[in-house]
Amino acid sequence: MKVLVINCGSSSLKYQLINMENESCLAQGLIERIGTEGSGLTQKVEGREKYIVKQYMKDHKDAIKIVLDTLVDETNGVIKNVEEISSVGHRVVHGGEYYSSSVVIDEKVIQALEECSKLAPLHNPPNIIGINACKALMPNTPMVAVFDTAFHQTMPDHSYIYPLPYELYEDHKIRKYGFHGTSHKYVSQVAAEMMGKDIKDLKIISCHLGNGASICAIDGGKSIDTTMGFTPLAGLAMGTRAGDIDPAIVTYLMQELDLTPAQVSDLMNKKSGVLGVSGISSDFRDLKAAAEGNKRAQLSLDVFHYRIKKFISSYAGALGGVDCIIFTAGIGENSSDAREASCEGLEFLGVRIDKEKNNVAGKVAEISAEESIVKVFAIPTNEELMIARDTKELCQL
Amino acid sequence: MKVLVINCGSSSLKYQLINMENESCLAQGLIERIGTEGSGLTQKVEGREKYIVKQYMKDHKDAIKIVLDTLVDETNGVIKNVEEISSVGHRVVHGGEYYSSSVVIDEKVIQALEECSKLAPLHNPPNIIGINACKALMPNTPMVAVFDTAFHQTMPDHSYIYPLPYELYEDHKIRKYGFHGTSHKYVSQVAAEMMGKDIKDLKIISCHLGNGASICAIDGGKSIDTTMGFTPLAGLAMGTRAGDIDPAIVTYLMQELDLTPAQVSDLMNKKSGVLGVSGISSDFRDLKAAAEGNKRAQLSLDVFHYRIKKFISSYAGALGGVDCIIFTAGIGENSSDAREASCEGLEFLGVRIDKEKNNVAGKVAEISAEESIVKVFAIPTNEELMIARDTKELCQL
Repeated sequence: MKVLVINCGSSSLKYQLINMENESCLAQGLIERIGTEGSGLTQKVEGREKYIVKQYMKDHKDAIKIVLDTLVDETNGVIKNVEEISSVGHRVVHGGEYYSSSVVIDEKVIQALEECSKLAPLHNPPNIIGINACKALMPNTPMVAVFDTAFHQTMPDHSYIYPLPYELYEDHKIRKYGFHGTSHKYVSQVAAEMMGKDIKDLKIISCHLGNGASICAIDGGKSIDTTMGFTPLAGLAMGTRAGDIDPAIVTYLMQELDLTPAQVSDLMNKKSGVLGVSGISSDFRDLKAAAEGNKRAQLSLDVFHYRIKKFISSYAGALGGVDCIIFTAGIGENSSDAREASCEGLEFLGVRIDKEKNNVAGKVAEISAEESIVKVFAIPTNEELMIARDTKELCQL
Repeated sequence: MKVLVINCGSSSLKYQLINMENESCLAQGLIERIGTEGSGLTQKVEGREKYIVKQYMKDHKDAIKIVLDTLVDETNGVIKNVEEISSVGHRVVHGGEYYSSSVVIDEKVIQALEECSKLAPLHNPPNIIGINACKALMPNTPMVAVFDTAFHQTMPDHSYIYPLPYELYEDHKIRKYGFHGTSHKYVSQVAAEMMGKDIKDLKIISCHLGNGASICAIDGGKSIDTTMGFTPLAGLAMGTRAGDIDPAIVTYLMQELDLTPAQVSDLMNKKSGVLGVSGISSDFRDLKAAAEGNKRAQLSLDVFHYRIKKFISSYAGALGGVDCIIFTAGIGENSSDAREASCEGLEFLGVRIDKEKNNVAGKVAEISAEESIVKVFAIPTNEELMIARDTKELCQL
């Protein structure tokens, strides 16, 4: 069976077609600039040249139609007809407290997603548009929603309740939700396999370090805490996001600089993080290149690494120890510097990085030294495969 | 020599007269409701009954005059005349980046304190009023300012710089300052003495748990990180303060509930913390009493302890290990429950509490088990003595 995985952004769409017989990716692609001039699709199939379609797409339905056309294209496609797609898995950012696991999409689910839109106004609406567009084009194909928040619904209340008036939780759903759940779940399963252990017996700390970044404390396969919160702004310093700061700064800035809530929100989400500290870039490769001669570029990296180290230690406390630390996503998979700096000084936890082994990028690797009590891994994440697995499982029922 | 220690709030004033020959407290007192009806002074002298003066005090100068009158009162006083007071030490909340240690007060210092008032609008102005009132009444007595922030000025930049646009630090002084510095410094010195070690060789985590609460990571006697930040709102959950939350909640609340910055600030500072979660009280004794039958009272305590545990672990990471953990201030000194719950699950760090030894309140005690690798202490704080020591030292020069 073949599963199509769809990840809709506000003006973009990523997809993968996965053959679930052997979990291989048949084709993957990206559509950008939906609804604006210059929209187009790029598809990659292993062993072939990139295939690019330049075509105006007025909306997500247009975009999905082109995805399907491309997948069945006689020369550049990978399947004969759309019926070969047995089911579609949609990445959905926010499932609120409704969903602690993936779910087959029906009218009730769409309604719940709409209710969650207030909690994720940038993400859920395009996710819903994508689902509706797919339903229109493939009305008889079962679809599954896989949530970024679902994995974290196992957090105990002392992790997810903020020290705020309790009514804000009851009446306005303000609590920690956490994100990147699909990624944390995937890499923790891979790590358990690599250790040859049942995940139920492991205390794992997973560091998803991309342009957005979060860390998750996983006890026996279940998320018990994570650094992102009510929104994906919280926790670590990120490319352009501030992460945790004294919340009094928000009101101080508004009063001092006469900013609106939307302007402060923009400042914290888009002009902060390593970009804000360095003043140069949100791209860690640029910062690394600049760091030698530029104090602020180096400082931005120091802040980034220091906060990772503190959260790893903090979560060792939450878990009552740690057996395994995982680095994943753009920076986590590829930057040996980031991994080394984030683990520096954690010898008291039993963490020792092997510099040679750590000299690796983009593939699964154990990077801890032989004598390290805590195993440390670099593991490329694969959220699409995780979505496809859940989709397959739910659609076979 | 006798040092008078003054701590001025907006409508209150605490004082102690300390004999520096033997560091004994000759008298201590509290004035409340300055400027309103019902103002009065309560003075305690060891071995005597409480002495209460009910008298209207229109301002801090009035209040300090009554303090001096009371200290030299023939029946209830402890000194013969005001000239016996060789110097005055003032607690000042915010020294900004100007002061990394205590300082003899002159015009330039007062100017700097006024510049810092913007950073601590509730605290620095009454501190300055108190200094000026003292100067008017005791023009020839040298005075010293001892800052809550000074001890933390040793933090490295990767601790104190927020992942925000760097201009906010340069132009608006937005950075982590930290508070409770005098307390953290005092208890860490006591702990080093108790361990019979040079503080330069110790990694100490100090937990000041009062109605305001903060934790400090102390490396070789120097603060390298602390949980309070730009303001005393950040970090731990407190009696009525939220501590760290997703900063996006601040702007969300403003937009959702149509609140002004001042209203959200009020909500986070006065209606949050354990009061907000429990809906009952900000007093931990009330919460403990209510917890058995009340889920939210128990939850508020769970959140409080969980956050302490995570910050202790986090700071073990920042320090690269930990030799000693200290609990101080109202809750830290008196609540064996809070100490035990905050250390639960930290065995992986080498922390073991001895339940018997931990059954102690209000006095210096080692509460860790014999086999505990990390020493754990309960140590009553004594900020007044610390202020007096600095004052003595600076005024002898």
